[in-house]
Amino acid sequence: MEKVFVTGAAGFIGSNLVDRLLAGGKHVVGWDNFSTGQREFLASASANAQFELIEGDCLDLSALIRAMEGCDFVFHLAANADVRFGLDHPHKDFQQNAVATFNVLEAMRANGIKGIAFGSTGSVYGEAEIFPTPENHPFPVQTSLYAASKLACEGFIHAYCEGYGFEGYIFRFVSILGERYTHGHVLDFYKQLLAHPGHLKVLGDGAQRKSYLYIGDCLDAMLHVVDRATAKQARHRVEIYNLGADEYVQVNDSIRFICEALKLKPRLEYSGGSKGWIGDNPFIFLDTKKIRATGWKTTLTIEQSIIRTLQWLQQNQWVLQRR
Amino acid sequence: MEKVFVTGAAGFIGSNLVDRLLAGGKHVVGWDNFSTGQREFLASASANAQFELIEGDCLDLSALIRAMEGCDFVFHLAANADVRFGLDHPHKDFQQNAVATFNVLEAMRANGIKGIAFGSTGSVYGEAEIFPTPENHPFPVQTSLYAASKLACEGFIHAYCEGYGFEGYIFRFVSILGERYTHGHVLDFYKQLLAHPGHLKVLGDGAQRKSYLYIGDCLDAMLHVVDRATAKQARHRVEIYNLGADEYVQVNDSIRFICEALKLKPRLEYSGGSKGWIGDNPFIFLDTKKIRATGWKTTLTIEQSIIRTLQWLQQNQWVLQRR
Repeated sequence: MEKVFVTGAAGFIGSNLVDRLLAGGKHVVGWDNFSTGQREFLASASANAQFELIEGDCLDLSALIRAMEGCDFVFHLAANADVRFGLDHPHKDFQQNAVATFNVLEAMRANGIKGIAFGSTGSVYGEAEIFPTPENHPFPVQTSLYAASKLACEGFIHAYCEGYGFEGYIFRFVSILGERYTHGHVLDFYKQLLAHPGHLKVLGDGAQRKSYLYIGDCLDAMLHVVDRATAKQARHRVEIYNLGADEYVQVNDSIRFICEALKLKPRLEYSGGSKGWIGDNPFIFLDTKKIRATGWKTTLTIEQSIIRTLQWLQQNQWVLQRR
Repeated sequence: MEKVFVTGAAGFIGSNLVDRLLAGGKHVVGWDNFSTGQREFLASASANAQFELIEGDCLDLSALIRAMEGCDFVFHLAANADVRFGLDHPHKDFQQNAVATFNVLEAMRANGIKGIAFGSTGSVYGEAEIFPTPENHPFPVQTSLYAASKLACEGFIHAYCEGYGFEGYIFRFVSILGERYTHGHVLDFYKQLLAHPGHLKVLGDGAQRKSYLYIGDCLDAMLHVVDRATAKQARHRVEIYNLGADEYVQVNDSIRFICEALKLKPRLEYSGGSKGWIGDNPFIFLDTKKIRATGWKTTLTIEQSIIRTLQWLQQNQWVLQRR
């Protein structure tokens, strides 16, 4: 892994990864269509001579093929990550996740690139039956277009590994927190509390249990797995890892952490029901034995990650205006 | 279910289904792009006033939306069923299975149609770890583009059921045999033996173990499930059934049945290896307890199905010229 192609390079996870790869001495080609990516996130990367930014869309296969030329590994992080509003525009998940990933695989094949790391989601387990949920959970039933489209991506990556000798590293994330976080409940709550400090609307009953992971820990895990695997002679064709914390919190816990940090005591108004929205998973808690067995561990608790995210949002309020 | 839309209506399974639905008094709109469908298979249907044939491609969403108008249930059987040569043209599986199915779901949504039965495949289990393989087998790893694309279809059907209140019936087939069979090992072997009766080339080592199902039994199962479910008040959002025989045969058994029926003793030439091709599953045997618990059972053994298929091919040699 010397010259790395990163899709979604201007996104939350992508831009943090770009910085890490550059710090590790890699050449990095960043690819983003800036539909949700932020140029500001690539400010420091852009000052590095080892970084090249190419603006483009994964739906444009021929541009993607040209852009990947000379790279030897792909981190595919570009995605429609708008889980909650999938039902408003089902084409978006299908195009930006399933079709985009298929194009990434085809562009790799055209360039003779064999290694891919992919950001999938713990949502592919649907409403899981086992907690914490292991990677080999029973055949899942999808509950959201987002997860269905990510599952489609996983399947195609498997098939390319089997059929074309690709090496795939699939990471099923819980929600990621930390610097450059641009959407999710911490941002929603903070935005509401800035507008009306005495009142907070909460989707669902607040009892939803969710695991989260700090961006630094997420990147540690991905880079650890890929470095370790690419250093080996005998590689697996597909390695699949859950990435999450070894704990979960309730939405109500998260509200408490945020309100304590902001020194606010808002009146809470719950929309009610066990799910925040159609397709929401009221309990997400992944079994991370497999990734921990490689020696990786988290450095921040969920509470610390939430506070870190909140602090970053406080220092980067421009992000609140971007959506 | 009064006016039924059937995609892939001129195909092997689709055309047999059309005949069965018409015999059951339904109005049927058949949809086919005739890329592999055969007009001859719709000869008797076309003489029925309750049947309407609309020629079109699932990739043409606006035409599909128009064609579905007034229908109240969809059997989606159109597919690229060319499992073996998927690696030669990965776009085909992606377009004709994943994109086509997404369009079918969108056309249904545009027309307010909620019920869909889908022909999936036992190949979605990849190289299964459990035999016979149950529907809730551990999270599968895909081995072919065909199966990956079918898994993608399944996931999107789930998400539409959850998100838009669709009712989905997913049938994971083993290979189907019987009248109007147009591709697969029985045809390959018969074609070879017609050309050179003393010599038969066999992919793999002949020890691959596969289960098969007779087309009549396959249709019995699908119609039984859908009729039963649509008659109930309380329906499941997604019902998933394996469809297969309660037995399996080796490729060598199949060769023996065919050669005995043809009274031939060819020299067998094996390509070797446990798999017939990259992505081939050397053992396919589905657990069918769930479908059998509904009262369904097979009427033909695998041996009888193979003989029936061979006899039909002997009587319909034009099919051999069509590919």
